[in-house]
Amino acid sequence: MNERQRARRPGGRSARVGAEVHQAVTELISERGYGNFTVGEVAARAGVADSTIYRRWGSLETLLTDVALTRLNAQSPMPDTGSLAGDLRTYAANVAREITGPDGLMVVRLAVALSSNGQQGLQAGDDLRAERTRQLQVMLDRARERGEQAPDAFGVLDHILAPMYIRVLFGMVPLTPDYVDGLVDRLL
Amino acid sequence: MNERQRARRPGGRSARVGAEVHQAVTELISERGYGNFTVGEVAARAGVADSTIYRRWGSLETLLTDVALTRLNAQSPMPDTGSLAGDLRTYAANVAREITGPDGLMVVRLAVALSSNGQQGLQAGDDLRAERTRQLQVMLDRARERGEQAPDAFGVLDHILAPMYIRVLFGMVPLTPDYVDGLVDRLL
Repeated sequence: MNERQRARRPGGRSARVGAEVHQAVTELISERGYGNFTVGEVAARAGVADSTIYRRWGSLETLLTDVALTRLNAQSPMPDTGSLAGDLRTYAANVAREITGPDGLMVVRLAVALSSNGQQGLQAGDDLRAERTRQLQVMLDRARERGEQAPDAFGVLDHILAPMYIRVLFGMVPLTPDYVDGLVDRLL
Repeated sequence: MNERQRARRPGGRSARVGAEVHQAVTELISERGYGNFTVGEVAARAGVADSTIYRRWGSLETLLTDVALTRLNAQSPMPDTGSLAGDLRTYAANVAREITGPDGLMVVRLAVALSSNGQQGLQAGDDLRAERTRQLQVMLDRARERGEQAPDAFGVLDHILAPMYIRVLFGMVPLTPDYVDGLVDRLL
């Protein structure tokens, strides 16, 4: 079995490499900030060859997007509580917990950096945004199918996510449950 | 007249040095991003001695805050139209124009970087936020003195500024007049 075949085997070396590379990226962003390290440094920290990273992710930009998406998705699955108010309150509380947690600021700053970092960044930012919007849309569509009135995904971005993101970016934490519920109630 | 006296003379060399140093910072942020240059590099670009910058600003952090505050203040003076709706619409339109202009993204990213960049950054971020909140408060107090109902400054941050900042950071521009007016009307 050659290197390429091993890298593709699910759950084995491939999963371990993925986890180690993600961990290396998270550490390097915490230590140096976004944009201040190379693929070679990620590879060295993860104990893999540069070529392994290039083969799997293609570029540092794609790798960074993958890390941000994985963290945002893993930590904020979309709730399904039976009512839009319940879904949005649970969703907003999940996001609040995630972005005020140990790596939360890093994830928000990474999403922001990827979203506004020139042409390549715009592509990565588009991917992030498209994925986030798609998840939200499923939740909002489900509410409409139940006959509930639902805002659009932009309303959720502008009046639930944006205030929380900006308060985290500006260091105005914690986000209390009352504050987070208040954002949802205000939107609905 | 020694160097120190010249630097303090208002309107003359001092003002020129200030403008040149601010311009150098703006250029370096555009080219390299926040945090990727030194006081020495700012000084070389502005054609002044390192000691001139340290004497006047004390640190790179303070200089960056000064640049961000100057730009935010110069480009967004607080309007006084006679009604809160008019004031907030004009204010929001000014902010929208400023943050979607040529250096707008840089100013927003600088404000964000200063606000969440560890202990020193928190101090600088506090200064930025305190100044912005003070300006807003004057406008809101004026409305209350006229007998109008006014939201608090946090409401303006959460539901007018935060959506616009996040849309700029995520590259979701332009901010149309309808969109900006809609944010104000929704808050009031």
